[in-house]
Amino acid sequence: MKKDCAYAAADLVKDGQILGLGTGSTTHYFIEKVGMRVRDEGIEVMGIPTSFQSSLLARKWNIQITSLDEHEIDLAVDGADEIDPNFNLIKGGGAAHTLEKIVDYSAKELVIIADDSKLVDVLGAFPLPVEIIPSSLNPVTKALEDMGGEVKIRMGKAKDGPVITDNANFILDVAFGKIENPISMEKELNTIPGLVENGLFTEMVDRVIIGSKDGVKFL
Amino acid sequence: MKKDCAYAAADLVKDGQILGLGTGSTTHYFIEKVGMRVRDEGIEVMGIPTSFQSSLLARKWNIQITSLDEHEIDLAVDGADEIDPNFNLIKGGGAAHTLEKIVDYSAKELVIIADDSKLVDVLGAFPLPVEIIPSSLNPVTKALEDMGGEVKIRMGKAKDGPVITDNANFILDVAFGKIENPISMEKELNTIPGLVENGLFTEMVDRVIIGSKDGVKFL
Repeated sequence: MKKDCAYAAADLVKDGQILGLGTGSTTHYFIEKVGMRVRDEGIEVMGIPTSFQSSLLARKWNIQITSLDEHEIDLAVDGADEIDPNFNLIKGGGAAHTLEKIVDYSAKELVIIADDSKLVDVLGAFPLPVEIIPSSLNPVTKALEDMGGEVKIRMGKAKDGPVITDNANFILDVAFGKIENPISMEKELNTIPGLVENGLFTEMVDRVIIGSKDGVKFL
Repeated sequence: MKKDCAYAAADLVKDGQILGLGTGSTTHYFIEKVGMRVRDEGIEVMGIPTSFQSSLLARKWNIQITSLDEHEIDLAVDGADEIDPNFNLIKGGGAAHTLEKIVDYSAKELVIIADDSKLVDVLGAFPLPVEIIPSSLNPVTKALEDMGGEVKIRMGKAKDGPVITDNANFILDVAFGKIENPISMEKELNTIPGLVENGLFTEMVDRVIIGSKDGVKFL
């Protein structure tokens, strides 16, 4: 299902476009299919990665890499952990949401791809990821608890100690329960000193492509 | 004048306190005087630095270093580039405002020290520093220009290329002209993806100590 929606998104890519390359297991398939189209159809595109993961994968598929210093993005394709009916998102399960937000926010068109398990009525089924400057762990934790969150620092599984992001920061996973006002919460969280970026993406998405047992749906 | 107000602040320090150590030429004197009191009076304090500069200086003066992971801050003493009549500040001339905001915000008491040239009626005489993630230079610049700012990336004087902060980021100096609504602007700036922290400090300061030709004034 992930592959189906990702491949459908890759079919939207037009020759000559600058692409924002999201991070994660679903966008993995998107990058793969774009790479196949470069190889098989000879389309010429350039990719702006949102992580070391998407950068390495793009290189593997001979997708030319560029940056926001050189190009603007025509189309960004990214995954999501949760999607609400207003196309507000929670992202950050892959610890890449800071660079993803920079890239997604600056794209002319943002398409989100996901399997249908990611559709929710209200955001907040899973904890909200936030990226923080390591030395701010205690005060940021306190500020998040004051907002009603239950805070856990994300620990590495293939390294000892905390996960370190591509920006050399920490990730906190913050359980708020249902998030009824994602738009205001996204802004409020970013006022906390030491909190670099939160995983709420609101008022940003142009289109959602969902993979399901019944096929691909364009929302 | 910088020395006078800094020394006056150092005289406020009580034995046993945990201190937030600001960055810059004025707080330099504060740390120096605290160090003298440790040496001469035997007071026991611990410092939480806001930069490599204040950390190195504290070590030189044998002020024990600790962190927000271990202690809460009783008293933070920091400088400012501009101070308005409501004690709203512009900081960031030393490129340390992100860690300064983390430390200052979490202190039980925040005292600002400055010479009287820093007092202004309205903030914005000088450009506002903002710290950004390097790969976001173009989209953040565009977002700041859309807000009416004139943006310059801060270049190094003792290194080639841009200044790199203690968090390995860039600094943009953004001329907005007079900043009439610093409280809302501080929040709005932090919603820009890639912008880590801005140099507006609002609703945070407990006391201001000013050095002037006529002596030290406690505001």
